[in-house]
Amino acid sequence: MTATPEEGRYLAIKMARLIIKITQPDAAERDKLRPIYAKDAGMLIAIGQTVAIEFSTIAAANNYWKK
Amino acid sequence: MTATPEEGRYLAIKMARLIIKITQPDAAERDKLRPIYAKDAGMLIAIGQTVAIEFSTIAAANNYWKK
Amino acid sequence: MTATPEEGRYLAIKMARLIIKITQPDAAERDKLRPIYAKDAGMLIAIGQTVAIEFSTIAAANNYWKK
Amino acid sequence: MTATPEEGRYLAIKMARLIIKITQPDAAERDKLRPIYAKDAGMLIAIGQTVAIEFSTIAAANNYWKK
Amino acid sequence: MTATPEEGRYLAIKMARLIIKITQPDAAERDKLRPIYAKDAGMLIAIGQTVAIEFSTIAAANNYWKK
Amino acid sequence: MTATPEEGRYLAIKMARLIIKITQPDAAERDKLRPIYAKDAGMLIAIGQTVAIEFSTIAAANNYWKK
Repeated sequence: MTATPEEGRYLAIKMARLIIKITQPDAAERDKLRPIYAKDAGMLIAIGQTVAIEFSTIAAANNYWKK
Repeated sequence: MTATPEEGRYLAIKMARLIIKITQPDAAERDKLRPIYAKDAGMLIAIGQTVAIEFSTIAAANNYWKK
Repeated sequence: MTATPEEGRYLAIKMARLIIKITQPDAAERDKLRPIYAKDAGMLIAIGQTVAIEFSTIAAANNYWKK
Repeated sequence: MTATPEEGRYLAIKMARLIIKITQPDAAERDKLRPIYAKDAGMLIAIGQTVAIEFSTIAAANNYWKK
Repeated sequence: MTATPEEGRYLAIKMARLIIKITQPDAAERDKLRPIYAKDAGMLIAIGQTVAIEFSTIAAANNYWKK
Repeated sequence: MTATPEEGRYLAIKMARLIIKITQPDAAERDKLRPIYAKDAGMLIAIGQTVAIEFSTIAAANNYWKK
């Protein structure tokens, strides 16, 4: 649960990153991968899809921040 | 929340772009990537999928703009 | 909102195309890309996924065309 | 709307094929593409994803065939 | 409809396989493809996505196995 | 059903892994694949998408852990 949609977006990004962390627990390996996907248009788009799916769950959980 | 489905579409596109911005905060790097995905049919389609997912969340949040 | 599921399908295809148009506004560039994805089985399938996601939103918005 | 889940599956497959047909209206071109994706494990899996999304919409539209 | 979430998972896998079967009806061809995707990490992940989508439909259809 | 969203995340990851296990039942083969996807940014992102889909089902099943 988050207070605003903006916080919901950041939670979605954090959730997407946590999965990477659990699948590849070695921080040194993750540091090697970061510059690869940060410079790859296709991978950035794929990250966007993951965050979009996570956000849709968070938005529903927060009843779309309706009062 | 947006007033019309059209505004919802633009918000979906903006949300998809914001994720790219957060994952690759370096504007110069993003400028290098833009011509790559803008000329790549496969990447344009993948962007379309991301926007479609974001829009489905926005549409539900707006109760499909029903009165 | 569309009157029938068939119109919903066409709207889904139109929506998927509009995203491509906004991301790549240059008509000449889009004309170059069209024959690429129209002859590529993998890209046609990916377009199908995008339309499927857009259609699911449209179908929900129309309450699945139930009376 | 379909009478049974099985019919829903076939409708999902038909809907996925129709998108390909609209995007690539040239039957001769589609005939060339068919053997490509039918022998490509990755593309068959991607078709499966599209059908899965279409089916989820059809299943919801039919209220999951509950009496 | 299935009695338990576990049965729901197996149904999801079965449904994902059935689509492959309908798209590539030639059993000999499917036998050739099996060792390809079973040894390909990327394809195994893609199969996982398909099953995840099918399962979400089955879970909703069973009202998440709530009493 | 899980007690908390955190447990829901771990269940999502477990569910994603179980599909791989059923599709590739040979543990020795899976051990060969693990270092491949753990060092591949694109595959890690794809795993993230699968977990995101599984989690959205689990979150809905738990009514988003609302009291």
